[in-house]
Amino acid sequence: MATPEDLGPVRADQITTWDHEADVVIAGYGVAGAAAAVGAAQSGADVLVFERTGGWGGAAAMSGGIIYMGGGTPLQKACGFDDTVDAMKAFMKAALGPGVDEEKIDAYCEGSVDHYHWLVDSGVVFKEEFWGEPGWETPGDEGLMYSGGENAAPFSATIPPAPRGHVPQMPAEEKHGSSARGGGYMLMKPLTELADRLGVRAEYDVRAQSLVVDDDGRVVGLVASRYGRRIAVRARGGVVLASGSFAYNQTMLESYAPRLVNRPAASVEEHDGRSIRMAQALGADLAHMDATEVAFFCNPQLFVRGILVNGRGQRYINEDTYAGRVGQATLIENDNQAFLIIDEASYEEGMASRSSSAGIPAPLTWAAETVEELEREMGLPEGALQSTVEVYNRHASEGKDPLFGKSPEWVRPLGTPLGAIDLRGRTGGFTLGGLRTDVDSAVLHASGRPIPGLFAAGRCTSGVCAGGYASGTSLGDGSFFGRRAGIAAARA
Amino acid sequence: MATPEDLGPVRADQITTWDHEADVVIAGYGVAGAAAAVGAAQSGADVLVFERTGGWGGAAAMSGGIIYMGGGTPLQKACGFDDTVDAMKAFMKAALGPGVDEEKIDAYCEGSVDHYHWLVDSGVVFKEEFWGEPGWETPGDEGLMYSGGENAAPFSATIPPAPRGHVPQMPAEEKHGSSARGGGYMLMKPLTELADRLGVRAEYDVRAQSLVVDDDGRVVGLVASRYGRRIAVRARGGVVLASGSFAYNQTMLESYAPRLVNRPAASVEEHDGRSIRMAQALGADLAHMDATEVAFFCNPQLFVRGILVNGRGQRYINEDTYAGRVGQATLIENDNQAFLIIDEASYEEGMASRSSSAGIPAPLTWAAETVEELEREMGLPEGALQSTVEVYNRHASEGKDPLFGKSPEWVRPLGTPLGAIDLRGRTGGFTLGGLRTDVDSAVLHASGRPIPGLFAAGRCTSGVCAGGYASGTSLGDGSFFGRRAGIAAARA
Repeated sequence: MATPEDLGPVRADQITTWDHEADVVIAGYGVAGAAAAVGAAQSGADVLVFERTGGWGGAAAMSGGIIYMGGGTPLQKACGFDDTVDAMKAFMKAALGPGVDEEKIDAYCEGSVDHYHWLVDSGVVFKEEFWGEPGWETPGDEGLMYSGGENAAPFSATIPPAPRGHVPQMPAEEKHGSSARGGGYMLMKPLTELADRLGVRAEYDVRAQSLVVDDDGRVVGLVASRYGRRIAVRARGGVVLASGSFAYNQTMLESYAPRLVNRPAASVEEHDGRSIRMAQALGADLAHMDATEVAFFCNPQLFVRGILVNGRGQRYINEDTYAGRVGQATLIENDNQAFLIIDEASYEEGMASRSSSAGIPAPLTWAAETVEELEREMGLPEGALQSTVEVYNRHASEGKDPLFGKSPEWVRPLGTPLGAIDLRGRTGGFTLGGLRTDVDSAVLHASGRPIPGLFAAGRCTSGVCAGGYASGTSLGDGSFFGRRAGIAAARA
Repeated sequence: MATPEDLGPVRADQITTWDHEADVVIAGYGVAGAAAAVGAAQSGADVLVFERTGGWGGAAAMSGGIIYMGGGTPLQKACGFDDTVDAMKAFMKAALGPGVDEEKIDAYCEGSVDHYHWLVDSGVVFKEEFWGEPGWETPGDEGLMYSGGENAAPFSATIPPAPRGHVPQMPAEEKHGSSARGGGYMLMKPLTELADRLGVRAEYDVRAQSLVVDDDGRVVGLVASRYGRRIAVRARGGVVLASGSFAYNQTMLESYAPRLVNRPAASVEEHDGRSIRMAQALGADLAHMDATEVAFFCNPQLFVRGILVNGRGQRYINEDTYAGRVGQATLIENDNQAFLIIDEASYEEGMASRSSSAGIPAPLTWAAETVEELEREMGLPEGALQSTVEVYNRHASEGKDPLFGKSPEWVRPLGTPLGAIDLRGRTGGFTLGGLRTDVDSAVLHASGRPIPGLFAAGRCTSGVCAGGYASGTSLGDGSFFGRRAGIAAARA
């Protein structure tokens, strides 16, 4: 553990010897750090990256690799989808709030096609194939998919839906080897290889400890620790913070996102909030520290075919939407209580379907001949589930779901026999809040002004998500604003 | 508006002349500032308070005056209620989370009876009478009431309930004069009068701008503005920040509590987050910035007699609980959609009852002969409201509410004719998040260590509430930890 004193900041006049020096110094070699490294090097800067673990990758390389892009990317076009910058903006502002940074989303959407080209030019490969099965996220190597509920209520009724989840293709030998990897690896591999070719230097097993500031409050370097030895690093241009979220910092979770205590997931344990803490020590502002991605674990092919009810037997969301929306609604609005009600015919059909979550077991927790019997077995108050099924079936017989707008494709009256899957506690996630930055990735002081020489990107910042989430927005804003951080630091 | 540059911190060696000097310097003369002033003066310190407006009072003096105290106060005993420190702790930890600061709640509960005596010794008068009508908060001068849902589900089943809302008595001439005031005035008046007698100096129309720190990072004063003129104030012991919430800072609301944008209430417009910003500039940590008190405006005598449903016709809370819990459930979990369904007989009975909200109009928005007709008039999907009423009535005929546990006293089947009151958008509130402080009101740095010389209390800090709320906890933790801030600063 770091001692309180070493958080900093350290005054430049206290540094007697600089152990390293570069134009742009980056803390963290995940997606934001790699994009910053390439962006800075392409701007002509001498770049040095410090990574706490033994190699590049971070949470990005462990992830499924979805990158949220749109507005008419070549991949979207090749798969036959029209998308516009306006539709992308409208969706992101509606789905990722309340409280989204509109300026940031505007910049992100307007620059998305360019960002796609930059990734492809960097060596990232996308296979021109669309995956459209429930759950929406591919188990294969298809390149394009829905990843935020664009194709479901309430958004699809008013905002032209387009799939924006872009996934780098994984060669068969990587995918099926003894250490099988996801698409995130095939995002990180070409980016870090390009960084190498551009002359970016990387130092591993080095942990950033504190920022170094001069008399004018400008960030001019950082102090780090390598196997217990303190090293001082001078940044002639700027420092980019990119060391990830605070999902594994217990104190920060308790203070800012208490619902995630004991349920961090989808992240690496190095996500200890260090970048946020170092910048806070300089007066940096934060944003949306309570926001969390919440994954929900259930076989999606069963999910769309059943109805999801809370601890009182009430439906609370359309079952054909993005699983992350279901997770947030479950954890934040329904006390983490969820049950899937499904009849035998739909259960068998779902289990036989192509699924993106084939590995997730989905045994029925309860089975019954009637809804009344199921309700009793589940311990729900008399009539609670019966009335929910009755209202659902009344409209489903006409192919409608007026309460939540589930697509007619998945609306069918529940028959008997039927059963229920206990989904209580099947949530986990990571944090979305962090440093408040501007559209050029400058870290903003509590006064609102940029802190000179300090930039940040990735999940140590508050990005395009304020409350809601779509898969791909973390690799998306990490790479997009990471690149911008590198460019801005190179110019600083 | 403040310019970014004036947020500070200011270095002590940049101050050439100190315009004022004291042992303890306090920013803000609301409840936390007044309690700090008295606490510091009683510890022997020379105290100087700066208040931005033309007089003492702050949001506290405008409030109803409820102070959350318990564990067996003389007032509780005089009104015939047993309460224990353990029951108080259990309730606060269950109702004010998730994520409560347990150490803070422990200190608060263990010190509550002493705090009561300190207030009474300071001149605050409580009338020995209990008010127990729905809505729970008195319209009269009774001194004791339920103020957080202690007497309702889900808490009352496992935690011995006790009323803990203590309200200072208002003399008739103050209450009914041309500028009628609430009980908060009768908390602030004796505290500030006592401060006067103890020699506390108060300067009005002075706005704190930035903190002054010495070379070791210790807070040694503040810079303020009086009619545009800058004044420097030296604090020999410590500075206490007590200038209220950020409910009226638009940028902070957007970044931290976006659901309150355009609906701040129950606060004064000076609550611009300045204390939080000044401390952030020194590296202060924050906590629970998303937490909000949410008031819900509806006649409580109607409320308990009806059923509350969301935009889909579903019940979502027991109608006999604390209105603040209803407000939070409505705004945060149900998209600010709420309708009260009530039959004619209950409506007439409720309107004829003693009410704590007699002034709130409660006309029926829709009226109908049957539930089916009402459902149609409200535009709800067919069967949605009918099934809710059917399930409610099924159990109500036996005096039960197994879904939400409303007390049998208020459970009665809905008859016909009936109607509905449109309560959409009837919420407003203030922010509960702020500076992270320890049990002695020291402001904590992002590193976890106290910032030397800096203390804070009241709604510029995260107090006993992390997510939930009970009326009286703001005046409660403001006065309790305000007093501690004054004592700690006097000793510093």
